[in-house]
Formats: sequence, C-alpha cells, structure tokens
Amino acid sequence: MSLFLQVVPVSKAIGEIRSLGNRCGQEQVTLGDALHRILAEDVLADVDIPGFTRSVVDGYAVRAADTTGSSDSVPSMLPLRDRVAMGSSAEKILQPAECIYVPTGGVLPAGADAVVMIENTEQIGDEILVKKPVADGENVIFFNEDFSKGEPVVRSGKRLSPQDIGVLAAAGCSDVPVVRMPKIGVLSTGNELVPVTVRPLPGQVRDVNSSVIAATVLDWGCLPVFYGIVPDTREALTSMISRATAECDVILISGGSSKDDRDMVSAVIAELGSVLVHGIAIAPGKPTIIGRCGGKPVIGLPGHPASAFIVLIAIVRHLIVTMTGETGTSLRTLQAVLGQNVASSKGREDYVRVAVKDGIATPLFGKSGLLNTLVRSTGVVRVSAEREGLETGTTVEVILW
Amino acid sequence: MSLFLQVVPVSKAIGEIRSLGNRCGQEQVTLGDALHRILAEDVLADVDIPGFTRSVVDGYAVRAADTTGSSDSVPSMLPLRDRVAMGSSAEKILQPAECIYVPTGGVLPAGADAVVMIENTEQIGDEILVKKPVADGENVIFFNEDFSKGEPVVRSGKRLSPQDIGVLAAAGCSDVPVVRMPKIGVLSTGNELVPVTVRPLPGQVRDVNSSVIAATVLDWGCLPVFYGIVPDTREALTSMISRATAECDVILISGGSSKDDRDMVSAVIAELGSVLVHGIAIAPGKPTIIGRCGGKPVIGLPGHPASAFIVLIAIVRHLIVTMTGETGTSLRTLQAVLGQNVASSKGREDYVRVAVKDGIATPLFGKSGLLNTLVRSTGVVRVSAEREGLETGTTVEVILW
Repeated sequence: MSLFLQVVPVSKAIGEIRSLGNRCGQEQVTLGDALHRILAEDVLADVDIPGFTRSVVDGYAVRAADTTGSSDSVPSMLPLRDRVAMGSSAEKILQPAECIYVPTGGVLPAGADAVVMIENTEQIGDEILVKKPVADGENVIFFNEDFSKGEPVVRSGKRLSPQDIGVLAAAGCSDVPVVRMPKIGVLSTGNELVPVTVRPLPGQVRDVNSSVIAATVLDWGCLPVFYGIVPDTREALTSMISRATAECDVILISGGSSKDDRDMVSAVIAELGSVLVHGIAIAPGKPTIIGRCGGKPVIGLPGHPASAFIVLIAIVRHLIVTMTGETGTSLRTLQAVLGQNVASSKGREDYVRVAVKDGIATPLFGKSGLLNTLVRSTGVVRVSAEREGLETGTTVEVILW
Repeated sequence: MSLFLQVVPVSKAIGEIRSLGNRCGQEQVTLGDALHRILAEDVLADVDIPGFTRSVVDGYAVRAADTTGSSDSVPSMLPLRDRVAMGSSAEKILQPAECIYVPTGGVLPAGADAVVMIENTEQIGDEILVKKPVADGENVIFFNEDFSKGEPVVRSGKRLSPQDIGVLAAAGCSDVPVVRMPKIGVLSTGNELVPVTVRPLPGQVRDVNSSVIAATVLDWGCLPVFYGIVPDTREALTSMISRATAECDVILISGGSSKDDRDMVSAVIAELGSVLVHGIAIAPGKPTIIGRCGGKPVIGLPGHPASAFIVLIAIVRHLIVTMTGETGTSLRTLQAVLGQNVASSKGREDYVRVAVKDGIATPLFGKSGLLNTLVRSTGVVRVSAEREGLETGTTVEVILW
C-alpha cells in the first residue's frame, strides 16, 4: 500500500458513513424506562387534555359579568349554591348572580365562565362577598386547551426528556414505542495494549479507547459490546471482525495506530467487505477508515484516544443519527472569543481543543496523544477546511463536550 | 390553618432544603457502569502516563541536531541501525548521526530526542535520507507528560463524562468509587388522579407528576421509587409517608393542589416530623412544602406538573446536589434577547417559560397548568425578586431544560 493516505474531505466522509447506516427497528418500553430513548412514532393524545374545563385556583365559579365593578368597599354579593368535589363532575348548573365553590383542579360548573380566587372573597353565612372583578375565562383552563384528542404530543425522532415523559403520561402512553438501541461492537488492536487492570510494562499502554468509545456511544443511547484487545494478526482480526459484524449493528475498531497496523485493519476490512474511505482531511483523526463488512459499517478509528474521540464526534455521530432517526441533534455550543491565534492548514478541517473561561476560549495546544487536554478542555473549535487559521479576537463557536 | 401561606424568599427555602440533605455514602462500580455517576473520591494515576517517551508518528528516531539544515535538495543521510517493535522496549541506544525506525506509539530509543515523519524521508538501502529538519522533542510525547504517578486525574464530585472514563482507564481505575444514587420516593395525592393506563372520566386527570418527577430525578442520577397515587385521607397519607421515609432518602409528594389537600399534606408532615417551609415566593410553585419526617426530607410539590417541574429545578435540585456532593452543577444556559415585556411582582422570583429562536426569547404566557408550554419551550428565564419585570430587548440568560 502507498505511504500516503487518499484523504477525502470531511463532507465526503460524512456522506459515505451516512450511506452505511441502516435504520434501526423499534421496540416497546414502559414509560418509566423511556427517558433518553428516541421516540419511534408520533404519539397522539388518546383523550382531550384536559377533558373538562377546570379551575386553576381554589375559589368561586361565577359568571364574570356578575363581578364587574367589585371592590373592597363595594363587593358583589353572590349566594353560595354548591361545592364541587375533586375528581367528580359539577352537579348543579350555575345560575346568574350566584356562585359555586370549586377547588384547584376541580370541574368548572356549567353556566360559569371564570373563578374568583378565595383570597379575594369573604364568606358571610351563605353569601360570598367578591372584592375583585374577574375577566371571562380568568383562572380557568378550558376543555381541550392543552392538547386535542388525536393531536401529536411528541414527535417521532425526539430523544425523550423528563417533560416529554410527562406529556406522554398525560396522553395515556404507558408503553412507549422507541427506537431499538444500536449495538456497537468495540474492538481495540495494537500489540502495545494491555487491559486497564494490568500495570503496563515499558512500551505498553492501557487500552483507553475501548472505555472512551463505549462510554461515548452509551451516552448517545447505544449499547456497547466489548470484544476486548485483539492481537495484531490478520487471523485474529479477521475472526473477531467476522464475529462482531454477525452480532452487532456497527463495529468500531480503534488502534492499529502505526502505519503497518492501519494497513492490516484496512486489508482485513477489504477482504471481508470493502473500504470506502481510508484517510479524512481532519486533524486530529486523519487515518480513519470507513468500511463495510457483511452489510455492517466497520469503522477504523485512530489509536490516540483524543483523536478517536474527535472522530467519534465529527464523523461517527452522523452514522448513529442516521440509524436512530434522532431529530434535533445539533451539538451543544457556546460562543466565545478566541484568546490566541490558531494556525491551520487549508483543505483540512481542524478541531482545536479550548478551555473557555469568562467568555475567552484559550487553545490547548496539547499533542493529540495527551489525555489531559480532553478533560481539561471545555470543548473544541472547528476550523473549516476553507480557512488557514483563526485570529485572536475572533468570535468562535465552541462545540461543548 | 390560615388562608394565606407564610411565604419565604427563594434563598431562604434553598437554605432550609440544603440543611436537610445528608451526604450519601459510596459504592464501587465497574468502569463500564460508571458513566454519569458522581465520583466519590479523587482518583490518582497509579502509574506515570505515559510510562515511557514515545513517538506520535511512524518515522525515524534521531538526534534533532543531526537533521539541521536538511532539505529535499540537501538531505541528511543517516544509517538505519534498528527497528523498534510495538509494545516492547527499544533495545539499542541511538548513537550520533544514525537513526532507528519507530512506529506510532513505539518507545523512543535512548539517545534520541525527536522523530522524523516517514513522509519526510526516503530509504536507500540501509541509509535514510532526511529531507526536513526536526526540532528537539518534535513528534514525541515524553515520559510523564500526561499525568504523573500519584497525581489526581479526576476529582471527587465530578459527574463522569466519556472523557473522564477514558482518563480513569489510563489511571488503572477499573473499579470506580462513586456516590450511591439517592433513592427518591415519589408519591402523588389527589382524588382527581387516575393512573396513566386509565382513561379519565369527567373531573379526573391522569397522574402526570409521578412520571415527570421520576424522570427528572433519574436524569440527575437518582433512583426513583414509585409509591403510586395515595388517597387524600390522613390515614393513607400517614401510612404511605411513613413507609416511604423508611425506604428512601428523600420523599417527593406532589399534588394535594387544592388548599384543603395541601393543608392535609402539611398536617401529616407536621405530625410525623416537622414543616420548615410552607410557601415560597416563587411563581409558579408558591404552595411548596419543605419538611422532615424520620430524619428524611419530605417535600410537597405543587399539583400542576409545570409548577412542580419548576420547583424541582429551582429548589429541589439544591437538596440533591447537597446529598451527592456533585461539583460543577451550574445549569446549562443560553444568552438571548427578550422579545416581549415580562411583568413580574417585586418580592417574588418568577420563572417564565420562553421559546428561543434566532437569539430571540419569546415568553410563552401559558397558564401554569398547561403541559404544552413545557414541551414547546426552550427553557425558562428567571426574574429575580428585586425586579418588577424585564423589558423587551433585555439580554437574558435562558436556563435550558
């Protein structure tokens, strides 16, 4: 193989990786298990919400017109006809110039159009003195005002927040149709790697990538499946990739960070299927491989954990979104002013780690192999391929970790 | 009891609720289960990271001085003495004016101080032509440069991100000391409530609060325990609160939204323990109760789901943070320009739901009982108790949901 990679622009790499994504199926989970899952179908309200016009305060249901001009000195006086109990229909119909007690959440009696708060009234025997006028509709939520029966309350593709869960509860959705979590096979290769539990000898490093990759895809709502550290031999790689593609939806192989190793990963993918991309115009992350084996996307990530993490966010994320159909996946960003010049190469998309403090983004020019810049940075600034760098004082968008 | 609540300022309510928080204990989880858990102790690197000076490129280890002045036309010529294998120590010591091949991640041989990228060289027999000079330390990560042995890599109180998980892996932390998840008992009261699975009759509403509250505390890393809908009787409430306080760390009771019901919840808490706060100068959320039974915080939330949600974020969150010791819990916020005047009452902290689009925050003046403003809003704008409102055009901080 050539010494040089055939690098493709980031947009091309994203296009290729998206083309590999098969849409995940769906499954039902209970409402209590639905938080952060992605909704697979629009959920419609099965009833009108609320199903009746209700009071939002403790007070007296009235016709608003009967309270016009009421004040502390000249209250309206309305006979108290009835009391509505919580959870039941109002039995009496309100007649002009009278009132019916209604608790917060209680049914507004027919004939009434507003509720006077109890704090603005005084009871004298069976009469209620109203000391403040109310407008038509005041302190009332109308039948149907929140959601109509049959109206979508949460749309397909939404990652469910606590508020969404509440709205699904109101809509009677106790079994929630959600997107099946993609199973992501996580493999590491590299003769220098030892498991986390082993103390590395000179020349060895712990397998950090398996943990970072698994935690990242878990964070995205996927199910990581560990295949451990695979020896850097063609046989071992072939057998493990075959097994993982049979068991998972996507395979992420990290490492093989030296050129020989990368070539081996690429050769094995080509043998089992095809390599679509080997080399992306992105820094860090250039030696990324995008391939397919047995119809499943097989992605070769750089061996440096910091580089692998950037590629996950900048490239692999698009594959997962294609598979889950998640909407509204724009990254969390923050505007900040660049505190130092950042040089970049034209034609290459650079991701520069920055620490943001008091609105100033200071680049951390850490070598991409250092882990500490990952945890000491607030996020990354993207320098597009068209630019040769960014100047101090430029307002930049920081993609938050 | 009085018709009017004894409202306290938000700051006082936060102080009281914090005083109730007992610090949670800790437990060990595997690294694969540690994502989003809160670290209970500083974790120290058990080794120097990296444990050896290594190359970050495929290339030739050299003394930088031997490459001074190299160019395409006048390359330096260095005999190739050895090849370092991945995962093993370098065997030979580099002598002046020679080079040793080293793969990405390989050990830098003693005597070398930089690595020339293979792309900037050419091999002719046993000689390597170096066509570009390197500086001292170029393409090298030094022993210890990332973390020193004994140095804290992640601090106690941190909610673990994917990157943190990676750093813990590098530090050899396979069993992670994390804060035990607080168990939160979730009860709803109100004769109007029916379970989500039931189609409400006139006067009835589904129990939305149990689902919203459970999902919110789950989102914060707590373990919700459902106690269902408790009938609005003193006996039922007393027995269920007693059971929940015996089994959980915190009890959140929602509903009892009418004054009679609120008084009943308050009376039962007072009988089983004590009521510290009944009424907070916050809108929505005024009728909140802060109490203690059997040494456990028992919080009465408003019956309206939207109000209950605001109280969770503005008040209850402080209790949970006190219990878990989580650091860096500042809310996610966004700056936006207010698109409409917002009126407020002085002496009361208002939380106004807004939808943000193109930098403009438009208030959603929905009635607090409506659920749809919760899912249609981007977040809330806090109007402090000192202000009587906010004018159109003011730059505001939107607390994102």
